[in-house]
Amino acid sequence: MELNEALAKLAELQKKMYAYNAASSSLYLDGTTVAPKDTAEGRGVALGILAGEQHKLFSAPEVGELLDFLWEHRDELDQLHRRQAEELRRSYAQLTRIPADEYMEYAMLTNEAGDVWRRAKEKGDFELFRPVLEKLVAFNIKFAGYYDSSKALLNEYERGVDTAYLDEFFATLRERIVPLIHAIGEKEQPDDSFLRRHYPAEAQRRFSDYLMEVLGLDRAHCTIGETEHPYTLEFNNKDVRITTHYDEDNVSFSMYSVIHEGGHAKYELGISDDVQYTCLAGGVSMGVHESQSRFYENLIGRSKPFVEAIFPRMQEFFPEQLQDVTAEQFYRAVNKAQPSLIRTEADELTYCLHIMVRYEIEKQLISGKLAVKDVPDTWNRLYKEYLGIDVPNDRQGCLQDSHWSGGSFGYFPSYALGSAYGAQMLKNMERDMDVWGPVSRGDLSQVSGWLGEKVHKFGGLLEPADVVKNACGQFDPTVFADYLEKKYSQLYGL
Amino acid sequence: MELNEALAKLAELQKKMYAYNAASSSLYLDGTTVAPKDTAEGRGVALGILAGEQHKLFSAPEVGELLDFLWEHRDELDQLHRRQAEELRRSYAQLTRIPADEYMEYAMLTNEAGDVWRRAKEKGDFELFRPVLEKLVAFNIKFAGYYDSSKALLNEYERGVDTAYLDEFFATLRERIVPLIHAIGEKEQPDDSFLRRHYPAEAQRRFSDYLMEVLGLDRAHCTIGETEHPYTLEFNNKDVRITTHYDEDNVSFSMYSVIHEGGHAKYELGISDDVQYTCLAGGVSMGVHESQSRFYENLIGRSKPFVEAIFPRMQEFFPEQLQDVTAEQFYRAVNKAQPSLIRTEADELTYCLHIMVRYEIEKQLISGKLAVKDVPDTWNRLYKEYLGIDVPNDRQGCLQDSHWSGGSFGYFPSYALGSAYGAQMLKNMERDMDVWGPVSRGDLSQVSGWLGEKVHKFGGLLEPADVVKNACGQFDPTVFADYLEKKYSQLYGL
Repeated sequence: MELNEALAKLAELQKKMYAYNAASSSLYLDGTTVAPKDTAEGRGVALGILAGEQHKLFSAPEVGELLDFLWEHRDELDQLHRRQAEELRRSYAQLTRIPADEYMEYAMLTNEAGDVWRRAKEKGDFELFRPVLEKLVAFNIKFAGYYDSSKALLNEYERGVDTAYLDEFFATLRERIVPLIHAIGEKEQPDDSFLRRHYPAEAQRRFSDYLMEVLGLDRAHCTIGETEHPYTLEFNNKDVRITTHYDEDNVSFSMYSVIHEGGHAKYELGISDDVQYTCLAGGVSMGVHESQSRFYENLIGRSKPFVEAIFPRMQEFFPEQLQDVTAEQFYRAVNKAQPSLIRTEADELTYCLHIMVRYEIEKQLISGKLAVKDVPDTWNRLYKEYLGIDVPNDRQGCLQDSHWSGGSFGYFPSYALGSAYGAQMLKNMERDMDVWGPVSRGDLSQVSGWLGEKVHKFGGLLEPADVVKNACGQFDPTVFADYLEKKYSQLYGL
Repeated sequence: MELNEALAKLAELQKKMYAYNAASSSLYLDGTTVAPKDTAEGRGVALGILAGEQHKLFSAPEVGELLDFLWEHRDELDQLHRRQAEELRRSYAQLTRIPADEYMEYAMLTNEAGDVWRRAKEKGDFELFRPVLEKLVAFNIKFAGYYDSSKALLNEYERGVDTAYLDEFFATLRERIVPLIHAIGEKEQPDDSFLRRHYPAEAQRRFSDYLMEVLGLDRAHCTIGETEHPYTLEFNNKDVRITTHYDEDNVSFSMYSVIHEGGHAKYELGISDDVQYTCLAGGVSMGVHESQSRFYENLIGRSKPFVEAIFPRMQEFFPEQLQDVTAEQFYRAVNKAQPSLIRTEADELTYCLHIMVRYEIEKQLISGKLAVKDVPDTWNRLYKEYLGIDVPNDRQGCLQDSHWSGGSFGYFPSYALGSAYGAQMLKNMERDMDVWGPVSRGDLSQVSGWLGEKVHKFGGLLEPADVVKNACGQFDPTVFADYLEKKYSQLYGL
């Protein structure tokens, strides 16, 4: 094989993968937005077949040979092609290490498990979910055996991060955040009842348009839709969609979901043209992606300068609801820290403890130290220990998240890592430039510019660990703990 | 090969084709509805690759062998499988008769031609479009040579219909309709100015919801969206989407587009479960599809009993706009027959003459009797001859339709055939049952029931000609001419 020929094949393979991804994304987008209610079956048939075709395309022996050939010639490749070959070779090895029949069996299991989980959650009946979860765990234990087991749990979502790294991270959080939360528990809570006045969806939609503008999201390349659960979906760096959900009795839900998803969108839209239609397009890892969404949502969006900057305009969108509220009151309300049961509704401070519970349980499940039947008890015990609250039932307990039913073990830590990365980025950003002057005028262009240069533009051109190093320096979870301690000490007068 | 094995492969092949179709449909739907404005490029890349993959899948030699094997064993197959093998074998032969390089070249040409046509139309500059159209015609002449040339022009859209069949059809129309239009030209036209009062989009949306209900379209399986040009898109018999466009200065546009697309949707939703995810799913031909949309739109939707049935409710949706209008006035206004320039805006009577012009030109182009450079003159001469009007420019003349730029030669006659089939269906329906009693009460369930049994349920299980025979009897264009003559003689007092 000539090198040029191999590179042409490499480009073609990646464009095909892009096309399959775009097809599946489009069907997913449709299914969660405008599709008629009773149409999931036919979409499921199409999605299943496309996934199978994509798997067949990528797992073919010729692909392995092509990638090996390119890897042998890696010294003759430019960075772009070397990284493509490296990434694809790793994915290929990961995919083909799992025997095809096990892969298909697992795909069918995760498909079935989603339905079972939904029914179990509705009924709050863990026993209904238990047999499926046992199978899922058994598969993941077996899969872990095909890789380096110390890295397996997170390998898929956060390459370069292993159990030792996470243990240290969560130990720091446990040590620093748990006492902070207990101290806040002694203090008086701010009034946040005005967040739950009636905020008509139509006014919230207009407010979202304004937030998109503040975030600098170009509507010709990024639209906002409505779904039950907010998400960001990227086709390429010219075509990103975010969604939100309007709760008429809670203005902060859609507000912060738009800023959060907007952060994901900024990342995707900021990725360089060079890597489009290749495996390097798209954010480099879940953790880095969450660092961006949480940067906009929490570090900027829940900062005092930002709230003060946009609050007067917000009062124009909601004059009746917010006329008797000050920016200071609003700032305190959206930063109220209080242990709660549901991860997705948790505040910035307590959120990472929800993740810690899940991380502990996943680690023990995959290492075989915890039996699936004991998950509810362990869950409830850890919620008491970390968050100081009693879990009344499994629906609001260990059945609340969809992740395990989809086979996503090891996904949760990325959420918390993202927050920690973000805190380090902010520290570096503050060293490099005046962050808060422009933000206090509602101008996020400098913030976005910094993130664009340090994170966004690379896409997958750098390894996740190198993007983190580039924007954060050496990973140091105490920076995140310092940030939280400072912010919440001020807020609660500790 | 065992027969069972072959049947399993047949099912798998068709499910894959379904998945590719669903993927492309979903991307198309997205692109025409919610996608951000400047995102066509990435979608184009995905659509092009998916089309290529689908082509590769279906044109593989193993598919030819499989289909030949099944055809050899056709006596052992049930009707469902025999028809699948027959249909796919025909498509396979049609596809593989064209050399792969010519097929790809043609695909790229039609892709490019769309843009060129749009620019040419904007500028009203036929010369800009001419070189591309010449290439398209040359390809189609060459392709026709690969088939039976007397059937080639329509073969793709209306199997069983050949040039002799169409010549007779259009000769009848020319003989009967042209004089009728000239006679109407001498008569006074009804006032239809009230159709162009201001009708807010929001009220039109609610009116569309009502029309969907009248049509008996189950919203759990069929939604209505908004696009520049209305269309119907089917994923399967449980998932169909229609779109419309709300012109605030013209209430009849969206009203009749909803009824028209609703007719297409009724067809798709009425197809039997047996043929889903096979090549027999979906309407059997363009002509039969148009027979259904036009049946609902014109034969029912523009009938006096239907207008009288829904007009009181319509006045509730548009109280200010329609308070001084009677059902009789409304009926006359939506049936105003007047030669005009634009096909898509033409009335029921003059519409088929627009088609006749295009048919004449296509026939002469493909037979080599007309040079592309002479299309505008021929177009203008025929519009004068059939419709009695002068074409002021090519934008409103031979550049108005997108069909040729997409390589769709021979598509137009299906529109007119559909109307003619519909008239014969109505005649048979009136013989079988009381059509107008229920319609005059706004109840279309019996009409839909008849069409469901005679047309819808079969999908592609019968040949197009057999569906036509089943619902119409022997094709007889004089029935359509009789219908038009009777309706318009009454309307205009001839």
